[in-house]
Amino acid sequence: MRPQEIIAAKRDGKVLSESQIKTFIDGVCDSSWADYQISALIMAMFIRGLDRDEQASLTRAMLYSGEVLDFSEIDRPKADKHSTGGVGDKTSLIIAPLVASCGVAVPMISGRGLGHTGGTLDKLESIPGYNVNLTTEEFHRIINECGFAMSGQTADIAPADKKIYALRDATATVPYIPLIVASIMSKKLAEGLDALVLDVKTGSGAFMKSYDDSRTLAEELVATGNKFGVKTQAVISDMGQPLGQYCGNAFEVYECLKILRNEIEPSARPTWELSLELSARMLVLAGVSDSLKSARSLINTKLESGDALECFRQNIELQGGDPRVCDDPAVLLDGSLLEYPITATSSGYLAGTDSFAIGIGIVEIGGGRTRAEDTIDPAVGLRCEAKIGDEVKAGDGLGVLLCRSESQAEHVHKRILNAYTIGPEKCDSPKLVREIIG
Amino acid sequence: MRPQEIIAAKRDGKVLSESQIKTFIDGVCDSSWADYQISALIMAMFIRGLDRDEQASLTRAMLYSGEVLDFSEIDRPKADKHSTGGVGDKTSLIIAPLVASCGVAVPMISGRGLGHTGGTLDKLESIPGYNVNLTTEEFHRIINECGFAMSGQTADIAPADKKIYALRDATATVPYIPLIVASIMSKKLAEGLDALVLDVKTGSGAFMKSYDDSRTLAEELVATGNKFGVKTQAVISDMGQPLGQYCGNAFEVYECLKILRNEIEPSARPTWELSLELSARMLVLAGVSDSLKSARSLINTKLESGDALECFRQNIELQGGDPRVCDDPAVLLDGSLLEYPITATSSGYLAGTDSFAIGIGIVEIGGGRTRAEDTIDPAVGLRCEAKIGDEVKAGDGLGVLLCRSESQAEHVHKRILNAYTIGPEKCDSPKLVREIIG
Repeated sequence: MRPQEIIAAKRDGKVLSESQIKTFIDGVCDSSWADYQISALIMAMFIRGLDRDEQASLTRAMLYSGEVLDFSEIDRPKADKHSTGGVGDKTSLIIAPLVASCGVAVPMISGRGLGHTGGTLDKLESIPGYNVNLTTEEFHRIINECGFAMSGQTADIAPADKKIYALRDATATVPYIPLIVASIMSKKLAEGLDALVLDVKTGSGAFMKSYDDSRTLAEELVATGNKFGVKTQAVISDMGQPLGQYCGNAFEVYECLKILRNEIEPSARPTWELSLELSARMLVLAGVSDSLKSARSLINTKLESGDALECFRQNIELQGGDPRVCDDPAVLLDGSLLEYPITATSSGYLAGTDSFAIGIGIVEIGGGRTRAEDTIDPAVGLRCEAKIGDEVKAGDGLGVLLCRSESQAEHVHKRILNAYTIGPEKCDSPKLVREIIG
Repeated sequence: MRPQEIIAAKRDGKVLSESQIKTFIDGVCDSSWADYQISALIMAMFIRGLDRDEQASLTRAMLYSGEVLDFSEIDRPKADKHSTGGVGDKTSLIIAPLVASCGVAVPMISGRGLGHTGGTLDKLESIPGYNVNLTTEEFHRIINECGFAMSGQTADIAPADKKIYALRDATATVPYIPLIVASIMSKKLAEGLDALVLDVKTGSGAFMKSYDDSRTLAEELVATGNKFGVKTQAVISDMGQPLGQYCGNAFEVYECLKILRNEIEPSARPTWELSLELSARMLVLAGVSDSLKSARSLINTKLESGDALECFRQNIELQGGDPRVCDDPAVLLDGSLLEYPITATSSGYLAGTDSFAIGIGIVEIGGGRTRAEDTIDPAVGLRCEAKIGDEVKAGDGLGVLLCRSESQAEHVHKRILNAYTIGPEKCDSPKLVREIIG
């Protein structure tokens, strides 16, 4: 079947068969479909829609377009967490060693930051020497030795997704739920998991800004995971403001290491709380704990004993990084950065934060990417001081921009300042965990 | 403005501004838009639609993406004819010399065949030596010397269209009226014309199969031409069966030369009648004749005197071809071809012809292209014997396939035979000229 026939069918609003979708994905993988044909079909899918069967066919075709990992040599249960992406969202770095130290293998395949959101791989690379490009063999070996590994998507894992995602990013076809589901789940299902917990973000810094969309996405992800035989649950969490204390790659790793050292600063508490919630659910789904309560208790033990930190230290060594960052996380920080305070221009209560604008501000000082090929400055970032619900007075610090120069600071200062809405009325701090799906 | 922003606007059904459309076309020309971004936007335009203002903006941007020819050095009026494409549609080769011999300059920029339709350039290339790749200077000089020239679209004429058309062909986005209008008119308006007659095909072999669509296309083309200051008229003509006696490149040139020699066989009469209709309208629009009647009379004089044939002979010499084809058109034909008759399997009246299937059949024996880069066999074709309305008996010849081998013939025989519908009831021969628009 010629690409044009499949494209025309979706162009005209027809439902594509499993075999048409497989033909498409095969064509993506063997390059018999040109990029412009792929993007034309994706746009037609975006506008005309994909039903549940098409979504499942697409996920299946993308999943089996590549290698599906098999960890049957590891007798522990396998679980992973995946976040739909946010600003200051760094829980993977805490969850992976924490859950691994509780006896669950975590084969975590992560991505890079793009647009306003950060990516786990970029964060990890701010640890000197840390290698995120593991071969499948290294990935297996490291999980075997320390319980978890964190790597980029190899060419063998869901190769169709890698190509399609890059095209979607360039053609304004990212924010469509069935495409998001197929993209996420084709990678996560390739990890050979028993259990998967999804952190679906909602609010100004999430891809899904409306709560209804976040909920739909969570439901579709959970349904797809379970359909493919992986115990799946989703936590809808608030991304109405950046998560925790810092945004910016090295700063976020610093925040995580401090948490793993059980030196949790007040503004980093949401990072810990969300990590605890997600980790506990992973332990229950994986069958290691029989209740959330016992899971939380086990996790707290592993945090306080230093086992989780020790697990991360081992991982850093195995992935080629410098483990001394575990002893003194501050070595990650660049002392030469300019500290540029963002101060409130009126008094009242912090009513809202445009996390998207903050994410874009970080990109503009070099901390993120506009295009996949951009290089980043891992050192820069933002220290978040005020949180929604806080009372603030004109002149109070809302945050501190940590950047390279005055001109950088002046360039983004207004965007960041405008991201904070101060209102006259007292308002509540938003609930971090909004809802559990599945 | 980033490509993604413009793509997202049309994706969401917004109306694009003139400046957004110009940004897009500039991006096509300077390659700052990738092919996959162009095709994503084109698909969004196809599905979401373009209104009249957007259609005009697109035409304008594509027109001025390249050179607009200026024939002010020629003091005759300039006119051209453009067909929306059909099967056996070869009138350009008759009209150009005919109209030129009546005192109108014809700067004809033509295309190649693709899919089921033929293309003037391929037909001309079956004349030994004929060069269809003229520089702008050659194009001017030849028109000055013999009154017309026929050339492919140079890289300087509407370059955006060339790129976009190739992508549309590969991404199932050809059949959408505003895109067709912008594609046709950006090239035709670049010819520096005073008058333009459009031959909008309707029926089984046309891109627009429904009459309503053909009519809408005709109206939009005429409105666009007039808006840009070119006197424009459209003739909606029947493509419910192949036009005239032959389909196939060399055979079609043969048919045209026989007509220009005033040796018009009965089955070639529709070719002549449509050529006469279109030519007469060109003369009136160009101001050379004051009525269709006097235009027809002038044309008949030029045919009978041999002036039109002489004009074509001069053109062939000027474009590097062998002018002896004018003396003996049969030299164009390859005597070694296999003649494979297509015979009726039942008796009755020829009620309908699937010209699209016939066009595809010709492609399958090598006479056309599936992809722009395919090479063609100019010699092969089909001689059309039965016409809609004819009484036929089982065993009567409907046509003769002229191809290279038995296996070729057996391969397409059934497709061609199935293209003919024989019914029990007497039916009328369809009107060739259905309606005049403008």
